Amino acid sequence: MILTVTLNTALDITYRTPRLVPHATHRVSEVIERPGGKGLNVARVLAALGHETVVTGFAGGRTGDVLRELLPTAPDPRGPASAAFVSVDAPGSFSPPVDALVPIAGATRRTIAVVDETTGDTTQLNEPGPVVSPAEWAAFLARYEELLAVADAVALCGSLPPGIHVGAYADLVRAARGAGVPVLLDTSGEPLRRGIAARPDLVKPNADELARLTGSREPLRASRDARRRGAHAVVASLGPDGVLAATADGVWRASPPAPAKGNPTGAGDSAVAGLLSALVERLPWPARLTRAVALSTATVLSPVAGEFDAVAYDELLSRVRVTEQPAQ
Amino acid sequence: MILTVTLNTALDITYRTPRLVPHATHRVSEVIERPGGKGLNVARVLAALGHETVVTGFAGGRTGDVLRELLPTAPDPRGPASAAFVSVDAPGSFSPPVDALVPIAGATRRTIAVVDETTGDTTQLNEPGPVVSPAEWAAFLARYEELLAVADAVALCGSLPPGIHVGAYADLVRAARGAGVPVLLDTSGEPLRRGIAARPDLVKPNADELARLTGSREPLRASRDARRRGAHAVVASLGPDGVLAATADGVWRASPPAPAKGNPTGAGDSAVAGLLSALVERLPWPARLTRAVALSTATVLSPVAGEFDAVAYDELLSRVRVTEQPAQ
Repeated sequence: MILTVTLNTALDITYRTPRLVPHATHRVSEVIERPGGKGLNVARVLAALGHETVVTGFAGGRTGDVLRELLPTAPDPRGPASAAFVSVDAPGSFSPPVDALVPIAGATRRTIAVVDETTGDTTQLNEPGPVVSPAEWAAFLARYEELLAVADAVALCGSLPPGIHVGAYADLVRAARGAGVPVLLDTSGEPLRRGIAARPDLVKPNADELARLTGSREPLRASRDARRRGAHAVVASLGPDGVLAATADGVWRASPPAPAKGNPTGAGDSAVAGLLSALVERLPWPARLTRAVALSTATVLSPVAGEFDAVAYDELLSRVRVTEQPAQ
Repeated sequence: MILTVTLNTALDITYRTPRLVPHATHRVSEVIERPGGKGLNVARVLAALGHETVVTGFAGGRTGDVLRELLPTAPDPRGPASAAFVSVDAPGSFSPPVDALVPIAGATRRTIAVVDETTGDTTQLNEPGPVVSPAEWAAFLARYEELLAVADAVALCGSLPPGIHVGAYADLVRAARGAGVPVLLDTSGEPLRRGIAARPDLVKPNADELARLTGSREPLRASRDARRRGAHAVVASLGPDGVLAATADGVWRASPPAPAKGNPTGAGDSAVAGLLSALVERLPWPARLTRAVALSTATVLSPVAGEFDAVAYDELLSRVRVTEQPAQ
């Protein structure tokens, strides 16, 4: 079983409007709601790849209720407090992620994406998220420890909601390492800086996050710096150019056959799902990177934001180019 | 008791963000939710003036639940299906509006107001609203007839949700007239055109709505045209310049001592509350218009959108200028 953690889940709302004009009044022509937050997206892609997944984190209030109703999940067969998840992966089959979200008093945040139908561009408004109390954080930690006991890998994804201390991801990385579970950290800013110091197996920053962390906009130099700070491996996403991986086994670049045109929403989450599934399947680095790039490119190509085009994915698997970089 | 009807209630959400830039991602710094829809706003002001009020219309889904929780209302003492509302107005005292909203399967719409903290301007995104089924409309009509039996006046406010026929307000105007209850209609477009033909006691269009209805941007000419179309009286709101009233008793202009600077949100709803409360109190037209202009101006002056500044209101009552226009 692969566990994904989303501390700041969101109800993602998409509005379509003919044209967004600041300071005007708009009649929204279409409203779409879906469960959001990076870890939920990662779990969706993992499930589509045939991996058993469990999602945890927080959900609360009316928006949390809607989010859980919309989650394409299977209920935990032994009830919400149980840790007895079947941990046999069955690639090829599909079972939806298991909902192990921890209830909180505050309301899950909303994000609003306003799609301008004239330009196709999106304007994003993100609520900050509910304040998580110390008791709720303690309840989450207990659930997390239970889930780690039966997890083959864990992904820690996204921003921290208000009330959670900035070193929270560092604590979660240490707990995973203590349980012997490979851990991937995908966040930004100070939570990333602190989390890296706790020595996660893998981080997946984009170029901006890497630059903020290291001060360098040169991906190879910055990735090596991030490794020195504690990350065992760094896979830097370079947008349409693919990824750069700095690992103990070597340095690789992986690129799609051509830069994809489309909606990049969720491409990073698909890359995380690719890396994590390939890690659990014990594939070597070049195959992991191939899967990550094929999945993220197929996500950009999908007409539905955050989903990947399965046919494009299969085709891309043989066309992603991986090149080992000379040791320096 | 004064009844207000809001067929397309809304959960009004206000976001504050440092600066709204199209096609960028924004972290929202503040989220405020309040019950919305013109009739709810009118009822709030009526209650603050000491009038007993009942609100009806539709509410449904999680957003409807939140809206009803946030309503500063008293529960109907005889249960939601009862029509036995005390109908004695007690000016000076305050009792919150009674919630007689009719539940529906669809979810109440949201409106999002994005306040740009740099410019102070607001960008508005309005969801279309839930589809109301024929059975839900029938349930509303039954409730409406019950409430009319004990109402001293009724205000029909705002847009129609999807699924309700464009002549709905005309039907509600006829029902009110059949019950001998004075009826004010405050809507726009085709529902206003159809509603006016059913001969409401009063309509309160703004200059744009009046121009769309009559083709004339000259308020006096347009108001007279609207009367010919069926409205017994027309009070045209002229924004910061006050109102123009065309009635069977004469034509008046009422203006504030100076154009108010502030947030005009809810000013029109306050004017409706002023007109309706003064009608129920059997005040003559000049006093009705004075109250409407004082309330709407005090609403613009209030720092909180949609609320009125009570001190400014009291002071404005003696300073609004009403002039009778010569008969033509």
